[in-house]
Amino acid sequence: MSFRVPVQEISHALRHGAGLDKMISRGLFPDLSDDLVEAVLEEAGRFASEEIAPLNRIGDQHGTPFENGVVRTPPGWKEAYQGWVDGGWMGLSASPEHGGQGLPLMLFAATTEMWNQASMAFGIGPVLTVGAIEALATHGSPHLNKTYLPRLVSGEWAGTMNLTEPQAGSDLALLRTKAERRDDGTYLIRGQKIYITYGEHDLTDNIVHLVLARLPDAPEGTRGISLFLVPKYLPDGEGRFSIRNDLRCTGVEHKLGIHGSPTCTMSYGEGEGAVGYLVGEENRGLNCMFTMMNNARLAVGLQGVAIAERAYQQALAYARERRQGKAPGAAGGEPSPIILHPDVRRNLLTMKALTGAARIICYETAHALDIARHGSDDEERRVAQERANLLTPVAKAFSTDVGVEVASLGVQVHGGMGFIEETGAAQHLRDARIAPIYEGTNGIQAIDLVTRKLGQSDGEAVRSYIAEMRETVARLGTSDLPGLGEAGERLAAAIDALERATLWITEHASLDPAQVLASATPYLRLFGIAAGGAGLARGALAAAEAGAEGARAQIELTRFFAEAIAPEAGALAQIVTGGAEATLAADAALA
Amino acid sequence: MSFRVPVQEISHALRHGAGLDKMISRGLFPDLSDDLVEAVLEEAGRFASEEIAPLNRIGDQHGTPFENGVVRTPPGWKEAYQGWVDGGWMGLSASPEHGGQGLPLMLFAATTEMWNQASMAFGIGPVLTVGAIEALATHGSPHLNKTYLPRLVSGEWAGTMNLTEPQAGSDLALLRTKAERRDDGTYLIRGQKIYITYGEHDLTDNIVHLVLARLPDAPEGTRGISLFLVPKYLPDGEGRFSIRNDLRCTGVEHKLGIHGSPTCTMSYGEGEGAVGYLVGEENRGLNCMFTMMNNARLAVGLQGVAIAERAYQQALAYARERRQGKAPGAAGGEPSPIILHPDVRRNLLTMKALTGAARIICYETAHALDIARHGSDDEERRVAQERANLLTPVAKAFSTDVGVEVASLGVQVHGGMGFIEETGAAQHLRDARIAPIYEGTNGIQAIDLVTRKLGQSDGEAVRSYIAEMRETVARLGTSDLPGLGEAGERLAAAIDALERATLWITEHASLDPAQVLASATPYLRLFGIAAGGAGLARGALAAAEAGAEGARAQIELTRFFAEAIAPEAGALAQIVTGGAEATLAADAALA
Repeated sequence: MSFRVPVQEISHALRHGAGLDKMISRGLFPDLSDDLVEAVLEEAGRFASEEIAPLNRIGDQHGTPFENGVVRTPPGWKEAYQGWVDGGWMGLSASPEHGGQGLPLMLFAATTEMWNQASMAFGIGPVLTVGAIEALATHGSPHLNKTYLPRLVSGEWAGTMNLTEPQAGSDLALLRTKAERRDDGTYLIRGQKIYITYGEHDLTDNIVHLVLARLPDAPEGTRGISLFLVPKYLPDGEGRFSIRNDLRCTGVEHKLGIHGSPTCTMSYGEGEGAVGYLVGEENRGLNCMFTMMNNARLAVGLQGVAIAERAYQQALAYARERRQGKAPGAAGGEPSPIILHPDVRRNLLTMKALTGAARIICYETAHALDIARHGSDDEERRVAQERANLLTPVAKAFSTDVGVEVASLGVQVHGGMGFIEETGAAQHLRDARIAPIYEGTNGIQAIDLVTRKLGQSDGEAVRSYIAEMRETVARLGTSDLPGLGEAGERLAAAIDALERATLWITEHASLDPAQVLASATPYLRLFGIAAGGAGLARGALAAAEAGAEGARAQIELTRFFAEAIAPEAGALAQIVTGGAEATLAADAALA
Repeated sequence: MSFRVPVQEISHALRHGAGLDKMISRGLFPDLSDDLVEAVLEEAGRFASEEIAPLNRIGDQHGTPFENGVVRTPPGWKEAYQGWVDGGWMGLSASPEHGGQGLPLMLFAATTEMWNQASMAFGIGPVLTVGAIEALATHGSPHLNKTYLPRLVSGEWAGTMNLTEPQAGSDLALLRTKAERRDDGTYLIRGQKIYITYGEHDLTDNIVHLVLARLPDAPEGTRGISLFLVPKYLPDGEGRFSIRNDLRCTGVEHKLGIHGSPTCTMSYGEGEGAVGYLVGEENRGLNCMFTMMNNARLAVGLQGVAIAERAYQQALAYARERRQGKAPGAAGGEPSPIILHPDVRRNLLTMKALTGAARIICYETAHALDIARHGSDDEERRVAQERANLLTPVAKAFSTDVGVEVASLGVQVHGGMGFIEETGAAQHLRDARIAPIYEGTNGIQAIDLVTRKLGQSDGEAVRSYIAEMRETVARLGTSDLPGLGEAGERLAAAIDALERATLWITEHASLDPAQVLASATPYLRLFGIAAGGAGLARGALAAAEAGAEGARAQIELTRFFAEAIAPEAGALAQIVTGGAEATLAADAALA
């Protein structure tokens, strides 16, 4: 089956659902026009569908063979990556001063989704490079940035993020990699890092590792971590990067999915020590890392959306072709395409509605980040940054859970065929399963949401978001669109549920933090359901007002989400507010 | 990590939760004693833990190589199977007249769970043989049975079920395999079957295929299907089975999981035709097949429970060892075992509570089947058979969905390690994913439940089941067990929700069958939540009354299920009764 990026749907979600149209009409990006947006999306969609998507299966089958420290990417990947670099896709939203095109993050988010629809294993590579770009652009010295940023922004070189060590995963306080000051202002790095995505590969001539490490006199815990840039090749005297740094890949993991992307164990400084350059200030590395991670978190959320879209398209195509049984009301003697069976229909609609809801949340997050950079005044930018902070964990965790859920439904729609690897549906599930784990597990995201993000501006950040959702949903009731009155009520109930749960979290935050931690995950899901439903409604209303093609589909999907998915919100609120005590009390059950 | 069958928990669920104690005390199985039950469970648990479980990983890695029609099982599997046959496990609940031990199906269900905890790929083999045994015992001629049944019951030979063809999966009306009458009363079979589990292997000297096929003059559709026994080896004149029948395996699938079990494409009658013997009457094969399938459906439900248990044990062990971050209230400078983090705790409790709930439902189904065979009068047996009919689709679909959900949570608890194949957590997810598909997809189960099972005895079968659940749950409120009052209310609300949804289904069954079909899947999940919660409550109450070891764990788990999972029931009822219209109306959204 041939996959196509759903350019129209993505464009619709960006423009109507997530606020791109308004951003254009306000002139926050002076050079940005509707035409430019459409041209970018069309060309990215074409490249993803035609140049990357065909490599997805190949990547799964070939993996990334490792021999003597060398990692080979799957057949065709190097050429596709080069084509992608030539297209200038890496620097789409990077600053023009570093060679970027300065376009909105919203557009970059949309293209990120596209590369990952085409292949998650391909798409995760640039996510790490963006992290490196962001960290350098925000914290790097002018000298360092002059050397490294343009080559990262162009995609000529790739970046990595080296956080995890065997004993230090979610808990970075435990990390042991050492950095030693040298007289020339550089550092020597020694230690082992694991799970380094694209830690070694043959796509680029140089790889720019960003590595967390400790100085000898650093305080314990997370306040003693510094960030270093450690390139695979160091510059010689003539401006060429020809000197091999003292670092190497010592192994590649055998993973459940995303086989096309090498997940490396990296060893730094087995000899004289790997030369590194400080990024930001000493002992402030965690700060720099959060810059990398926040963007990476949104990108991983987009991976969830992307794999869901891919799985949906494949299941839809199968359900149209496969004929089994007679659907209700079907005439004649022929078996019906299974898409006509109500149970299969419910599966497909669930897939599509969850995908659409997660997409809007991710794009809204990107929108908030754009306003946080380009808003017209400090206050607008501050508020937008808080909105982005609030939505980032939801975008990451809700969307990646959706990715797994939708990919699993995709297998189910295929029946027995779904379990056969050649069909490809199973690969989507295998690929999807990493996204709830990396860049901070979804549990960590939920904890971040309830312990840090809800409290922003004394709760005003979440309150204003809820108020906006409420306004959107109220418009469903007053619109004359058929069938949306009931949907409006259901979505309003979901928002009420979110508000109740939010209040409970706020009240218990200082009173009984363990209870809040126990309820964090169902709270995040509830947030995603309410926000996704409101986002779909916003898009549907805008599409209907604009008389847009596809408006009817948007309305139907909003209604389905409201009536067949959103009721979950009430149950989640009950679980958030009533399930924590039982969770904490159950000692014997886990003994 | 070394896996152990949780013999005590299984014994508890059988005896207190699902009614085995009462069955023993009523004397329905005269030779059955508590001691015998414990001895059987202990020895089965030992065999599964020590002899089969170590092969699980090996099976995953080696798969079942196929060459020239020959399928090799993974290293060590033949020896383990022989040991299992020597233990007499195949015939545990088969009739003594065919060489079985005549023990309750409940015990057989418990041991089925155990083999599948140890290895789903190993455990699925005997499930097919049981299907063949049941079909023959119920429908086979005395002559046929005399030859084949004892060898199947002993496990000396294995059985298969040949239903699916490329164009005929859920819809058996479409099957094309042909049967031709011969003068000697036998038949010649010609056709191709796919997805035949253990269709070919080296575990046994002969394989007894049960094959659905059509006679030349058969009516169209499912009323024209007959069942045939087609052995791999036919008897020669001297009572030896030395003549190769005209059938062969033409390929083995490359699957997402259960790699240790060969899934075969079978070709019958490429030459002169494969010799087959009619089972039951001509054109009544579907009837016979349902006999096979009902038992297989319960067994597959038990696979869901089993893989959930396996995944839970592995995640629990990891969560006890792995140290990251400081848990709330933790003293000292050491990082805490992650089991102390409330979010991880919630994951583990969710895994354990869902597993326990699904287990009780499966064992209750087996209990009903035992009473249906051994009840003291016709009426008791009739009522019990209806109970078994009612619960079978729930046991199959709810439990296998739980299997996938719990295995996925198991991956999540492991963090990055979960995605690495060597950890083993990912294998459980890959293995689990088949169970919602085979033996009738979970969508088919849900449709079976709402269209056939709810209507039994004019709704009395489901009404009496709901009434029983209500009684159990009411006892939570009047018990003086601490913390269970609130739990009782939550479970009562879940049962109310099930009742509302059941009423809606009943009302719409003739009025608007398409709506009922659209709501079937959420209805089945709702049924499972209510029944599982009531089942856990029943077990906890009985354990507390008996002052049993582990009673406190049961109580905590019941409370957790009631307060942190069962609220889902209210949402599901809303989705069942309010989500179908939107599902059926969404034409443009799926265009």
